[in-house]
Amino acid sequence: MNTLNAVLKDISGIDQGLVDKTQIRLDNLTKPLGSLGRLEEIAKLVVGMSGKENPDLKNKVIFTIAGDHGVTEEAVSPYPKEVTQQMVYNFLKGGAGINVLARHIGARVVIADVGVAVDLIPSPELRVKKIGYGTNNIARGPAMSRQDAIRSIDAGIELFEEEFKKGIDIIGIGEMGIGNTTPSSAITAVFTGKSLEDITGRGAGLDDTGLVRKRDVVRKALQVNNPDPGDPIDVLCKVGGFEIGALCGVILAAAAKKVPVVIDGFISAAAALVAYKLAPTTKECMIASHSSVERGHRVILDYIGLKPMFDFDMRLGEGTGACLGISIADAAIKILTQMATFESAHVSKKAD
Amino acid sequence: MNTLNAVLKDISGIDQGLVDKTQIRLDNLTKPLGSLGRLEEIAKLVVGMSGKENPDLKNKVIFTIAGDHGVTEEAVSPYPKEVTQQMVYNFLKGGAGINVLARHIGARVVIADVGVAVDLIPSPELRVKKIGYGTNNIARGPAMSRQDAIRSIDAGIELFEEEFKKGIDIIGIGEMGIGNTTPSSAITAVFTGKSLEDITGRGAGLDDTGLVRKRDVVRKALQVNNPDPGDPIDVLCKVGGFEIGALCGVILAAAAKKVPVVIDGFISAAAALVAYKLAPTTKECMIASHSSVERGHRVILDYIGLKPMFDFDMRLGEGTGACLGISIADAAIKILTQMATFESAHVSKKAD
Repeated sequence: MNTLNAVLKDISGIDQGLVDKTQIRLDNLTKPLGSLGRLEEIAKLVVGMSGKENPDLKNKVIFTIAGDHGVTEEAVSPYPKEVTQQMVYNFLKGGAGINVLARHIGARVVIADVGVAVDLIPSPELRVKKIGYGTNNIARGPAMSRQDAIRSIDAGIELFEEEFKKGIDIIGIGEMGIGNTTPSSAITAVFTGKSLEDITGRGAGLDDTGLVRKRDVVRKALQVNNPDPGDPIDVLCKVGGFEIGALCGVILAAAAKKVPVVIDGFISAAAALVAYKLAPTTKECMIASHSSVERGHRVILDYIGLKPMFDFDMRLGEGTGACLGISIADAAIKILTQMATFESAHVSKKAD
Repeated sequence: MNTLNAVLKDISGIDQGLVDKTQIRLDNLTKPLGSLGRLEEIAKLVVGMSGKENPDLKNKVIFTIAGDHGVTEEAVSPYPKEVTQQMVYNFLKGGAGINVLARHIGARVVIADVGVAVDLIPSPELRVKKIGYGTNNIARGPAMSRQDAIRSIDAGIELFEEEFKKGIDIIGIGEMGIGNTTPSSAITAVFTGKSLEDITGRGAGLDDTGLVRKRDVVRKALQVNNPDPGDPIDVLCKVGGFEIGALCGVILAAAAKKVPVVIDGFISAAAALVAYKLAPTTKECMIASHSSVERGHRVILDYIGLKPMFDFDMRLGEGTGACLGISIADAAIKILTQMATFESAHVSKKAD
């Protein structure tokens, strides 16, 4: 398996030559010039990212990675932290939102435990790469050691590379971890410098009092830990989470293999932000699916420079928004590869 | 077959009791309350529209209806009018955007000629319900007779009812007709009273000079014909089109059978507007897919009170946007019918 440093060396950007070639192809398809708007843009991106003139997005994979968070001690979520493990079982039984939407788009879901607070009942469907039994409470000290931060990224790289052997054409990233919008807010604050009011939202459904408390907790976490924005690993270890680190690893490993990564909501975007800070070129393999209700999500997408495809007022996580985004990317690629040209269909072109 | 008057009597609105029941079900699924946003809204709508507690959107049908327009004499499109017939052949061969996207979502496409300017080569896949060989030039007089306007609606009703026998759970509506954003602009102007600047766009790609000319043509069509906004059939016959009338008929027939209708772009929306003016309750079976580049599209959606799902800068027509919208509605219904409940999955609910 490759480790973080090896993967970072393999990340190359988009192939602009292929993007330009694809524009010419799109302009020859039987439709008014540019009339498929963002579908055309996305088709070009996927070609450029994958380095394939005719990608086939048959193998769609969602990585849904779970971990617990010590900061739940501070009552930052309206749900008990046991929900993390309960939801992993729900994923394994196929009853969660991500299972339904993955089936809808024909994707397989890789379910991984990198930091759930208990040992889960083994299952052939569950990938266990445990870094710890939940992070420490970031309001009182670092989430994890620097070594564990790197191990969490390596766990994600390993997950991706194992799965890559089975065939992967595009991935979506998702997560489960009660309390994880709190570390995501902290990560976003460190890297973007935006105010906590602009970044911190209601998560799974905090009321007004809860929201004020959560902002105070994030503020405290930043004060207590003083993460260094110039050192992404420091940020991840001080105010991150195991699943956030692992998702960052998945993204980096995908970028190294030229596999497009569809970002889901706020926590996935926070992981993407860490990956982007570690290797800015990684951005060129990222596609933003939706714009979440969590306000920090949009802050991250703007910061990285990603334009979401749609806004459905979603805030579930798990990779649910990414699923819908992958389906749109798939549609875009089929437009490119399956539509007739003016010539082949004997259709007259626009008058000059 | 039912005719317009019979169908109008059968149109009933949404079942609000079922919508409310569905909200309770959604709130018991394993996700934070309301966290699937618009997917939850759409699931409720589809249930209320169909009158089925557990709809299964297996039979997806796109009606792509073609007709020609005499107003192309006024150079309102950058494409020659022969493209209408050429594109119908492209539909029949499966090479157009609508074919690709319909295959992507697992929908069948009903291709119909209600007013192409020539007799097309017969094909088992082509439904011919010809009202005429293109409309008359609306800049000089009415597009068609009042009788033909009613016949075009009846053609749509017939198309829908024939197809309904094979099974239909949801439909999308689309069209092909070089020049048809011009009558659509005129229809929109008559019913909404908005200025032509707010309504008339570049269609398949007019330049600035062409756009000014097109606005003049629409203005002239309104002056010459003086359509009565209180009489939707008058509007259709004076400044409409055969495919617009037929799509209006499809929508009315679908509403009468409680089949949700996903609206595509500007021309489809103009047909929906005529249907809405004939029977305002029809609105309750409509779902807007995208917001098109054609500015008049949004004017219609706002007027009827429909909120588009997404904005991909599309302006192709054919039903392409409706396809993507149907896929999202399908995802929404699967969320409702396939997700586990808190109880069934043993997941703890939010703390009170």
